[in-house]
Amino acid sequence: MSCVFCAIVAGEAPAIRIYEDDDVLAILDIRPFSRGHTLVIPKQHTVDLTDTPPETIAAMATVGQRIARAARRSGLHADGNNIVINDGKAAFQTVFHIHLHVIPRREGDRMSVAKNMLLRRDPDREESGRLLREALAQLDSTPQD
Amino acid sequence: MSCVFCAIVAGEAPAIRIYEDDDVLAILDIRPFSRGHTLVIPKQHTVDLTDTPPETIAAMATVGQRIARAARRSGLHADGNNIVINDGKAAFQTVFHIHLHVIPRREGDRMSVAKNMLLRRDPDREESGRLLREALAQLDSTPQD
Repeated sequence: MSCVFCAIVAGEAPAIRIYEDDDVLAILDIRPFSRGHTLVIPKQHTVDLTDTPPETIAAMATVGQRIARAARRSGLHADGNNIVINDGKAAFQTVFHIHLHVIPRREGDRMSVAKNMLLRRDPDREESGRLLREALAQLDSTPQD
Repeated sequence: MSCVFCAIVAGEAPAIRIYEDDDVLAILDIRPFSRGHTLVIPKQHTVDLTDTPPETIAAMATVGQRIARAARRSGLHADGNNIVINDGKAAFQTVFHIHLHVIPRREGDRMSVAKNMLLRRDPDREESGRLLREALAQLDSTPQD
């Protein structure tokens, strides 16, 4: 299978899974800009904003919002998040299966952003995944959220 | 009125308008990272991803997609776009009325990204706005798009 995200969706390539529903899968980025950096990937392969149905974009965005809210409440203690879709090579897209980034940020991060651009390592990916899944489950158990 | 985006929505502060519907307004960023840099703003004031209804996030994302597609077809000749929501001060949010950035990119931009981060000027804002509105109108007139 030539698309790495299709292989992950099919369970044929490994990933740390954060969330899944009928339409999208969320996994940790293998080269994170911060701890908990998550990718929201539609299960149906499309390339970018030109060929992805608006309903899919809406689903990606609302799942991304939920993960961002979970990141704030999680043991990762995010104070905010960057939500990003890179649409096309000219916009730094590198995997040509559309995806939405959720990049948790903490106060004081500003000075370390440049460093993280180079390092892109998480000291404990499994733990980051566990913390996000736990916070999502807590959101799910409080219907007013 | 203390919120500049609420003032723009109310027509009490100037902006170059790209698109408007019942729920959102899209305007040119006054300090663009590239020509055509557009902000999609919900008309109802909320702060960030923690207090904005998921339906609003979905609407912002699908309008952003449409503007991104228009930017590619427009006289701005975008080859791609970055779609960004900065959720919280820790994530570089500076106006605390939630908004989604559409930043058109062109091949060869990579080397000028750093420069644009500093300059943030558009030599002809009115023309950028006209080109985006024109391309959106063309999308609207081709129902299959």
